Amino acid sequence: MKDLKIAVIGYGYWGPNLVRNFTNLENSTVSHVVDESPDRLEKVKKLYPDIDITCSLNQILENTDIDCIAIATPISTHYDIAKKALEHNKHVLVEKPMTNSVKHAKELIELSKKVNKVLMVDHTYLYTGAIQKIKELIDNDSLGEIQYIDSTRINLGLFQSDVNVLWDLAAHDISICTFLLKEDPISVQAIGSSHTESNFEDIAYLTLHYNSNKIVHVNCSWISPVKIRHMLIGGEKKMILFNDLETTEKVKIYDTQYQATKSSNEKKILADYRIGDIHTPKISMREGLSWLAEDFVNSILNNSTPISNYKIGLQVVKILEASQQSIKNNGVEIFLENN
Amino acid sequence: MKDLKIAVIGYGYWGPNLVRNFTNLENSTVSHVVDESPDRLEKVKKLYPDIDITCSLNQILENTDIDCIAIATPISTHYDIAKKALEHNKHVLVEKPMTNSVKHAKELIELSKKVNKVLMVDHTYLYTGAIQKIKELIDNDSLGEIQYIDSTRINLGLFQSDVNVLWDLAAHDISICTFLLKEDPISVQAIGSSHTESNFEDIAYLTLHYNSNKIVHVNCSWISPVKIRHMLIGGEKKMILFNDLETTEKVKIYDTQYQATKSSNEKKILADYRIGDIHTPKISMREGLSWLAEDFVNSILNNSTPISNYKIGLQVVKILEASQQSIKNNGVEIFLENN
Amino acid sequence: MKDLKIAVIGYGYWGPNLVRNFTNLENSTVSHVVDESPDRLEKVKKLYPDIDITCSLNQILENTDIDCIAIATPISTHYDIAKKALEHNKHVLVEKPMTNSVKHAKELIELSKKVNKVLMVDHTYLYTGAIQKIKELIDNDSLGEIQYIDSTRINLGLFQSDVNVLWDLAAHDISICTFLLKEDPISVQAIGSSHTESNFEDIAYLTLHYNSNKIVHVNCSWISPVKIRHMLIGGEKKMILFNDLETTEKVKIYDTQYQATKSSNEKKILADYRIGDIHTPKISMREGLSWLAEDFVNSILNNSTPISNYKIGLQVVKILEASQQSIKNNGVEIFLENN
Amino acid sequence: MKDLKIAVIGYGYWGPNLVRNFTNLENSTVSHVVDESPDRLEKVKKLYPDIDITCSLNQILENTDIDCIAIATPISTHYDIAKKALEHNKHVLVEKPMTNSVKHAKELIELSKKVNKVLMVDHTYLYTGAIQKIKELIDNDSLGEIQYIDSTRINLGLFQSDVNVLWDLAAHDISICTFLLKEDPISVQAIGSSHTESNFEDIAYLTLHYNSNKIVHVNCSWISPVKIRHMLIGGEKKMILFNDLETTEKVKIYDTQYQATKSSNEKKILADYRIGDIHTPKISMREGLSWLAEDFVNSILNNSTPISNYKIGLQVVKILEASQQSIKNNGVEIFLENN
Repeated sequence: MKDLKIAVIGYGYWGPNLVRNFTNLENSTVSHVVDESPDRLEKVKKLYPDIDITCSLNQILENTDIDCIAIATPISTHYDIAKKALEHNKHVLVEKPMTNSVKHAKELIELSKKVNKVLMVDHTYLYTGAIQKIKELIDNDSLGEIQYIDSTRINLGLFQSDVNVLWDLAAHDISICTFLLKEDPISVQAIGSSHTESNFEDIAYLTLHYNSNKIVHVNCSWISPVKIRHMLIGGEKKMILFNDLETTEKVKIYDTQYQATKSSNEKKILADYRIGDIHTPKISMREGLSWLAEDFVNSILNNSTPISNYKIGLQVVKILEASQQSIKNNGVEIFLENN
Repeated sequence: MKDLKIAVIGYGYWGPNLVRNFTNLENSTVSHVVDESPDRLEKVKKLYPDIDITCSLNQILENTDIDCIAIATPISTHYDIAKKALEHNKHVLVEKPMTNSVKHAKELIELSKKVNKVLMVDHTYLYTGAIQKIKELIDNDSLGEIQYIDSTRINLGLFQSDVNVLWDLAAHDISICTFLLKEDPISVQAIGSSHTESNFEDIAYLTLHYNSNKIVHVNCSWISPVKIRHMLIGGEKKMILFNDLETTEKVKIYDTQYQATKSSNEKKILADYRIGDIHTPKISMREGLSWLAEDFVNSILNNSTPISNYKIGLQVVKILEASQQSIKNNGVEIFLENN
Repeated sequence: MKDLKIAVIGYGYWGPNLVRNFTNLENSTVSHVVDESPDRLEKVKKLYPDIDITCSLNQILENTDIDCIAIATPISTHYDIAKKALEHNKHVLVEKPMTNSVKHAKELIELSKKVNKVLMVDHTYLYTGAIQKIKELIDNDSLGEIQYIDSTRINLGLFQSDVNVLWDLAAHDISICTFLLKEDPISVQAIGSSHTESNFEDIAYLTLHYNSNKIVHVNCSWISPVKIRHMLIGGEKKMILFNDLETTEKVKIYDTQYQATKSSNEKKILADYRIGDIHTPKISMREGLSWLAEDFVNSILNNSTPISNYKIGLQVVKILEASQQSIKNNGVEIFLENN
Repeated sequence: MKDLKIAVIGYGYWGPNLVRNFTNLENSTVSHVVDESPDRLEKVKKLYPDIDITCSLNQILENTDIDCIAIATPISTHYDIAKKALEHNKHVLVEKPMTNSVKHAKELIELSKKVNKVLMVDHTYLYTGAIQKIKELIDNDSLGEIQYIDSTRINLGLFQSDVNVLWDLAAHDISICTFLLKEDPISVQAIGSSHTESNFEDIAYLTLHYNSNKIVHVNCSWISPVKIRHMLIGGEKKMILFNDLETTEKVKIYDTQYQATKSSNEKKILADYRIGDIHTPKISMREGLSWLAEDFVNSILNNSTPISNYKIGLQVVKILEASQQSIKNNGVEIFLENN
């Protein structure tokens, strides 16, 4: 069976990872890379002499040999490129978030159904060993009812030119929570502040409310001197610290039930800092994007639904859009229509 | 000159630290300890045979030999005990926060002025080497205009029986921000959630807004499996990470200006994680409470104003009261009357 | 039953801990503290008004009310003081190491048998939750045959005036290995270097050889800019990292069998850094010295053998004496007479 | 000017890094890759369709278009391949250590002089930002006279099939010390132990002695459950901790002079853990191998001496050979002929 031919659009920060992973994959070949910068295209040529380079998207769209388009361009361009690609009967993998509006996301989904092509969003985290392990622990009820998820995702810069920090960083957390939890939030609150004339928030705090007394909070910043990737997941039975910057201890499971802390000898617990043992499971070290690429290819070949499907992609955009409304209205609670 | 005689009220979690520090101090003696629990009083007797123990507060109030009362009882009792102590012409050191209402705090302040006795709140953090060093760096403009303070103060339990997590933990951050910043917040927002039938929030997020584009955010939790004490302070020139759990590197100063990240080679910066050098100044290891106790005694002997004075104490209660209003109203912005 | 009366000799670095722990203990009272420095004795008086202070050791020896002597003076003085104490029919707890020569250690042991008094050495580590947990894991064969123990015990200063760094720091590791392992070393090698005119080694490396292919290595330094307390324990089934500076994760158990690394896919393992899960058991947070003090008192009252008995104390001195011989002879292997 | 044509011999663990870096370099092209494994050659073809693959070394040697040979095969094969390459007038970059004997190393050096070709050893560490920064600090006397270097280089496996752990891991430390210090060691001691039937030591401790009272100690292990890359460098003025596993704080400079610890208030210092400030300089994040590759190419084009030249390469083999002698003789001190 011949390889799927993939064209990668955009060879900036993420594009090279797409090229590398699709190249290493069985069943797929990167035939073309599109970018407007000649320098970047030069880099492609040096590393991958067999890949055709061009600055013309149309040329790619017209090329019927190409089966799939992988989009790694700025968010504001996702909709146009994905739309054209689907209209030209190509399968689409689009960088997260899918679009910068719910309206556009829904349009793309309808279109992909109509032309019967795969539309998949690149939420890479869902394919990491850490998130897969946490999903397993939640699904087999090792943690008990989830009470909170508290994420800190801060670092210095790479300012996006066309969106605020939530669209850039919180998109990860929202996709992870959507994937992990069996429940969708009913409302969204967000507060942020900007320290550049661009007026895009470079610091923002997002809160998700649920019908259960779950609460999700995400702390995002582009102007932190230190890089932190902490996600705390509190269950009634056990709690997890997911530290993505750890090499060998990314996921720590705390045998901790905070009910216990209501006993009379709380102070001992305080002095002790924790109640139970800690377990650090071995997790797969496979690069998430490598499995995501494989899932994309398989969903095309087997006509199956990928893990990072458009439903998750749409939910992420819904919540981001609502967060933007909330920020503009000083953190007022925005309720999500759930359909 | 004879030592000041101090009676410590409450020998639970914090009381023993007060007794130890006032005992070690020049110019002061702990003459009495009051607690309702005979067991706790027994502990006092075993360690300090010379200290008189009693379960009767009135006996202490009537005792004209006693110069000062140090209150380490639950928050809801602070007002009554402090009021009686002042009415009996005793100087008062009260555990933070001063009271559970602005009304009561103002009453105590008026009363202390009337009887001309010291009223001081035990905001110990202000006396630590770390906060003193940070204050120095802000005052000599090493950091430049402060853009944000982001604090994470989470751990497992020691649930307070009479207040939520903000009154317990955020009280520290509010006192620190009040001490460090030359500006008071104009409004407060808070969101929280409770996971016990007590309905006191065990997780809460507090945001302070300022006339400048400063933003302060505090993440508090009693139900985290890990203890974290992170305070990020972002200035236009430099940024600080204050990690109170570090033994020798509590305060790290990052020579980082995020403007730089807007240059064209952002991606290099991202790959590099930080722009400049890091400096970790040596700070005093003296126990904060030891210096606070000294400041209390000196403010009495020299009729001077202590660092942790009632103005800071009142401001903390103001913000906590506003945060409670905001929580009850789903995070609506509460504006502070500034007088 | 009346409390045992204990006199503490030496109120420098360690003495205060002895006083505090014996004071808090049931069945024992600290009746006297001896020190040549009036300032130190003042400190005692301020904190413990009921304890008699004196600079005369003889006065203590003659005092027949005193049951026990706890010695916290420089190593070179241990033998004289302990000898006199035993001759005056007092039980003895002596700071580690017991003496600075095997000859003296054996003399004290003989004497303690003759006068039928307890002679115990203060190897506090044996009473910590961490070492007790590791002992349990070795005894129930969770780790399998031990292949190596590798300890790094380095920090800045507190130079001892009368011994080198091995007598100060390695004494801990030797007592721990003697306690944990079912086997005594057959030979000792040590290399060191001095950077002060005192000519006492401030850096030294100790290696112990066993009949099995076990190897123990200890890296000690008084001139390291960072404090490290790492002990790696490699078993055929599992391995342990004991990091004494960790608050909540002192003992990590690695489900790692290095045989596995001989398989063909070594490189995966390398990329992965570890093979199995990590388990961090909850350990007791009780202060080791508190339990040691209790064990001392109980061994007197119940005429039982304490954990940190004179056999371990003697073995530590044997190995230290051999290490000194080896250092003086450029690391030549010194064989231990095993009786 | 046409690119230098490079053939990479061996595409196992390190070979791919050589191919990637020489490919990205100006002035050089990887024209051929040699490996005996068809699978590995397949990987090359998939990633680099333009590179010719072969399992025949002779074919490469005969090919006069090829200017350079980069050798990334097992140590025991270095001598034969390098010798043939030089005899065929090719420049040689050989994986560290250069050879497994001093005799062979000297032969290769003589040969390279005779044929006037570059012979360079791949001691990548010398080209890292961290080591370059430390070299700068030592050369401008920021640290003062160096008193010790203490390195811990332990991890789990990747057992070498033909040498012990010193030839694999300590080779790094020896090359670094040779590069950093203005002084060569006068003698070598090593102790090790093996836990496999291969009888190659998987744990080993190396000590280097100098005419000054410098001491260098290296702790190497293939059977540690944790990966540690700690190098402590103690100078009379300042001390350094180089932690290669840190992302942004690889080099910490401690403003610490241990003389200070001899003052009377040692105990305060101990309680404080360190004396002065810590400075963490920003260092270059460039991949060491990328600069090494460039240095190799430039040394050919400009007929200059590379940083990682054969003198350093020879010194490393000298010390490793001596360490092996010492291990076989229970750690006896082996003196190095210094010419």
